[in-house]
Amino acid sequence: MTAASEERVPAGAGGSSAAEMYALVERLYPLCRSITGDGVRATLDIVGEYLPLRVHEVPTGTQVLDWTIPQEWNIRDAYIADAAGRRVVDFRASSLHVLGYSVPVFARMPLSELRAHLHTLPEHPSWVPYRTSYYTPTWGFCLAQDTLDALPEGEYEVRIDSTLTDGHLTYAEHVVPGQVPEEVLVSCHVCHPSLANDNLAGIAVATYLARELAAREPYYTYRFVFAPGTVGAITWLARNRERVGKVEHGLVLACAGDPGQLTYKRSRRGDAEIDRVLRHVLSSSERPHRITEFTPYGYDERQYCSPGFDLGVGSLTRTPYAAYPEYHTSADDLDFVSPEAMADTLAVCREAFAVLDRNRRYVNLSPYGEPQLGRRGLYDSLGGRSDAKQAQMAMLWVLNLADGTHSLLDVAERAGLPFDAVADAADALHGAGLLKA
Amino acid sequence: MTAASEERVPAGAGGSSAAEMYALVERLYPLCRSITGDGVRATLDIVGEYLPLRVHEVPTGTQVLDWTIPQEWNIRDAYIADAAGRRVVDFRASSLHVLGYSVPVFARMPLSELRAHLHTLPEHPSWVPYRTSYYTPTWGFCLAQDTLDALPEGEYEVRIDSTLTDGHLTYAEHVVPGQVPEEVLVSCHVCHPSLANDNLAGIAVATYLARELAAREPYYTYRFVFAPGTVGAITWLARNRERVGKVEHGLVLACAGDPGQLTYKRSRRGDAEIDRVLRHVLSSSERPHRITEFTPYGYDERQYCSPGFDLGVGSLTRTPYAAYPEYHTSADDLDFVSPEAMADTLAVCREAFAVLDRNRRYVNLSPYGEPQLGRRGLYDSLGGRSDAKQAQMAMLWVLNLADGTHSLLDVAERAGLPFDAVADAADALHGAGLLKA
Amino acid sequence: MTAASEERVPAGAGGSSAAEMYALVERLYPLCRSITGDGVRATLDIVGEYLPLRVHEVPTGTQVLDWTIPQEWNIRDAYIADAAGRRVVDFRASSLHVLGYSVPVFARMPLSELRAHLHTLPEHPSWVPYRTSYYTPTWGFCLAQDTLDALPEGEYEVRIDSTLTDGHLTYAEHVVPGQVPEEVLVSCHVCHPSLANDNLAGIAVATYLARELAAREPYYTYRFVFAPGTVGAITWLARNRERVGKVEHGLVLACAGDPGQLTYKRSRRGDAEIDRVLRHVLSSSERPHRITEFTPYGYDERQYCSPGFDLGVGSLTRTPYAAYPEYHTSADDLDFVSPEAMADTLAVCREAFAVLDRNRRYVNLSPYGEPQLGRRGLYDSLGGRSDAKQAQMAMLWVLNLADGTHSLLDVAERAGLPFDAVADAADALHGAGLLKA
Repeated sequence: MTAASEERVPAGAGGSSAAEMYALVERLYPLCRSITGDGVRATLDIVGEYLPLRVHEVPTGTQVLDWTIPQEWNIRDAYIADAAGRRVVDFRASSLHVLGYSVPVFARMPLSELRAHLHTLPEHPSWVPYRTSYYTPTWGFCLAQDTLDALPEGEYEVRIDSTLTDGHLTYAEHVVPGQVPEEVLVSCHVCHPSLANDNLAGIAVATYLARELAAREPYYTYRFVFAPGTVGAITWLARNRERVGKVEHGLVLACAGDPGQLTYKRSRRGDAEIDRVLRHVLSSSERPHRITEFTPYGYDERQYCSPGFDLGVGSLTRTPYAAYPEYHTSADDLDFVSPEAMADTLAVCREAFAVLDRNRRYVNLSPYGEPQLGRRGLYDSLGGRSDAKQAQMAMLWVLNLADGTHSLLDVAERAGLPFDAVADAADALHGAGLLKA
Repeated sequence: MTAASEERVPAGAGGSSAAEMYALVERLYPLCRSITGDGVRATLDIVGEYLPLRVHEVPTGTQVLDWTIPQEWNIRDAYIADAAGRRVVDFRASSLHVLGYSVPVFARMPLSELRAHLHTLPEHPSWVPYRTSYYTPTWGFCLAQDTLDALPEGEYEVRIDSTLTDGHLTYAEHVVPGQVPEEVLVSCHVCHPSLANDNLAGIAVATYLARELAAREPYYTYRFVFAPGTVGAITWLARNRERVGKVEHGLVLACAGDPGQLTYKRSRRGDAEIDRVLRHVLSSSERPHRITEFTPYGYDERQYCSPGFDLGVGSLTRTPYAAYPEYHTSADDLDFVSPEAMADTLAVCREAFAVLDRNRRYVNLSPYGEPQLGRRGLYDSLGGRSDAKQAQMAMLWVLNLADGTHSLLDVAERAGLPFDAVADAADALHGAGLLKA
Repeated sequence: MTAASEERVPAGAGGSSAAEMYALVERLYPLCRSITGDGVRATLDIVGEYLPLRVHEVPTGTQVLDWTIPQEWNIRDAYIADAAGRRVVDFRASSLHVLGYSVPVFARMPLSELRAHLHTLPEHPSWVPYRTSYYTPTWGFCLAQDTLDALPEGEYEVRIDSTLTDGHLTYAEHVVPGQVPEEVLVSCHVCHPSLANDNLAGIAVATYLARELAAREPYYTYRFVFAPGTVGAITWLARNRERVGKVEHGLVLACAGDPGQLTYKRSRRGDAEIDRVLRHVLSSSERPHRITEFTPYGYDERQYCSPGFDLGVGSLTRTPYAAYPEYHTSADDLDFVSPEAMADTLAVCREAFAVLDRNRRYVNLSPYGEPQLGRRGLYDSLGGRSDAKQAQMAMLWVLNLADGTHSLLDVAERAGLPFDAVADAADALHGAGLLKA
């Protein structure tokens, strides 16, 4: 697999991080993650090799908003064995084979009785589904319909060697300090077992995004949260009620490596700055893409955009939540994601945060008539020509709209100019003392 | 006619009230109504057999807003007779033959002189037009152009045995008490003589709508006003200045039985709740329909939506005011309306008021993150599946938007879910203590 | 040329002013204008024969907003002569041949050295470009590429007999007094040399517009400003800081005579009343036209719409700024403009200001229900007819929307009625005491 993926890495820029992100996905793929337990710890240990992480352990029973941290689930082994003792379903082959959070079981029973505990996907008979039962104690196995169909009636031994005990919920944070304390939150869920796109690709893109951001001193402080879905995000919110007020923008990263086009799902607000930035970056690029409205379903934007918080947090995926057949099945494997797709997702994040970091509101200090740009060396000296250059148009637009209400992105969109040209013009005017931030 | 109409009644649900509404139209059809007089009283007497009415009599000369209650008009007989004494135009054949509010006349005159008092419809030579002259004292006859063309020159006897005397303007109300004192106004005009669609069909639909509402305890208090057009609505407004503040929604019902598609005309506000409800109900159904903007012409929405009142009152018709050739002619007869069309209009009113009655604004009492629905028995226990059910989506949407500003209709429209699914979800969440009204 | 132009004048109404405007353009065409100097004074002297002007002289060195009045530039002669003493480029043939604001020069030099001072239009080899260098002291000549190509190498005598000395910037105003002190500003630039469309046509249309307005007593006070571009408008703004608060509407007139379709460029506000009036007038007429969004480039709307002033000033042109090949070249000559085009531009100004002058907000003094129009003689007495007349609809719409927030233009647009019908209805209702202004 590694060899194959390296062949797929393009020669140009980004090839290096593309290959490295893919390699990280490969390392994380075999682990059996859940909303608690050692699988999450092992995942964060690996990510921690790429990025210093602060790991938090929150005890079972802790009240987090409306929820309570559940018992910790760990699993050593699980199988269904036939009368001959042959494992016909084996956890060692794939972490998906066990219903997530299964209570322990060790029993013999006829297939007729076992069937109530078996989950298949009849419409994709060779795929194993991913299923969990976090808050209702039960046990089960997930397997291919083909496998099930081939099982003769008769007695089977079933064993799930799991524990559900008081322990902890584990999540981690990485902070890239910025020039200002206001924060951008990047959140990805780490609770899914062997599913490559959902969400190992998101974890890998977030990891490399954090490394890139650290390499330049960003304007905003960027906080990366690697946490189990739903209860993990709720835990982070519960423990950061004060900090939430500083989170001005955010992005939930998921499904970052599949071959589909990029999809940005707006925040609940619909017109938050992050929404406008992503729309601008995606529509300015030549990428095919989709912008979709907020829905209270999907990933942890559900929590960040709950009405009490209502944060400006959108969600970036390639093919979105539940919109591809491989979703939550064994077909979401290492072949389903590619270095190129992850590099493309990373590039859009890079471009979006570059815009976000420069997107200020300025006030024109010489707002009555145009200031004389010529004597400040900011204007072409030969008049009468009709080919006003983009840089000069950008300066005129910034001066005209710099009334404290329009952001530079507003200016770029109204002017139909590239954001960078507008931000460069603002820098030049600011340097000449014509603008204040 | 009765036999024919019964044949047309469909076998299914609503067939009974459809037939009964049509029978009511048949009973009311022969009466000669005007803005005052015994025709209105007889009409209200008949409606009163179906529905307890409170009848109001307002004396001639009473000031009502900018208007004054006119003299009461009554008519016993009217005709044009030829030299042989044969009635060539006869009020007994149709109440339309007399210009409404004609002063009394008893004279002989040549046809040449009579012509100035005759009204025809040359473009529909076999139809008799409906004409009135409420505030300019004159007399006249309406007849078919064919009839006029067949009249030889010569002397005719004309007689209108009418009276214009101090009396009263008559209107009636019926109230269906609700759980709250805030009111929904349903208004229909009762001043037109033998015109079936305009507005006997409206009167019949309003009557059966009131009966249906009384059978369930509605949320709002529903007030039905049966009043002469213009001056009657103005009289009601003048005498209910205090009550107007309680009228939160309203509907003017007219032209409710013709074969055309349903038309909802928005209130002056354009986005009143009744406007949104009717748009939702019509566009959610498979009915062809039209939504039109407010204009200050038409029926008594003109008065309810005058700028001093500016009530949230729209108008529901089938083919609207003046938009069908039969409008205000003898062709608006018992064949022009059907039980099915009236039943369809009634059904839309029923659906719209069902939505209106459930359309509340709630506040999520657990707005920080999602509340844990599973432990409250509100969430499917098996995770990982992508087929989120409509009921669960409805709950998530209600929780996400229940911030006191979004109504359930807002939620349904933003979520793209049926209103009833959203309202059911709100009931379930309210029952679980997660919402307050 | 005069003969030719007179042939083109249409026989109908406006023919007279069309011919006269064209004749005014012909008189102004030969003069060498710049942002200061005697060319502007001569121009204003001629305009002053048509319209009493108040001429302002502002001394060199005066601070005006962010700018300083520059030295005054005057020129008597300029040429490039070949070895035989023959003038191969001659200012006497066209004022365009000298780079505007050239410093004086009298020298001999080889063509190779001279080339750095020569400006041509290679893509239109027979046209002479218009170029200036107001704020960087230099000298230069503009000539046809064909002329340059025909020049043999060798020595040339170059002379520019210009002066740059302390003097004045000159601009002029004409005021048409109105019924109210609130002002409408009409501004056109007077600084371009021999360019007919840009802006002699604008000057001529403004001149005749002022004459027409004076002939009727307008509602608003109309102020016409004839000033050099940019620094002239800035000077007017600097010297009229108090008055600016009274300028409720305005129009920059330029490029008023070319064969292209009319173009209205919105004010920075985008929905100022002048924007809505021009859109209404242009879209109500059968003229092909364009409405464009504000940009901070073009003519003196740049200054009037700078964020500190943000006046409701739009710009009316035919083909806009820099959008025709003849722009700022010798091809913008007397053949490029026509009496018909100027008459058409004048007609739109006339229509727009007629709407603006009548566009009031009224309050319905009888807002509860409809007032009884019949007893005031404002309503057709015979009821029941469906052909509601436009005048009656206009009255009902005015009454319905006269709540102090809707202008008559709002009413006309919402009602889909001609503005004049609505304004006439308002006059009738006002006359009947039903409205107050």
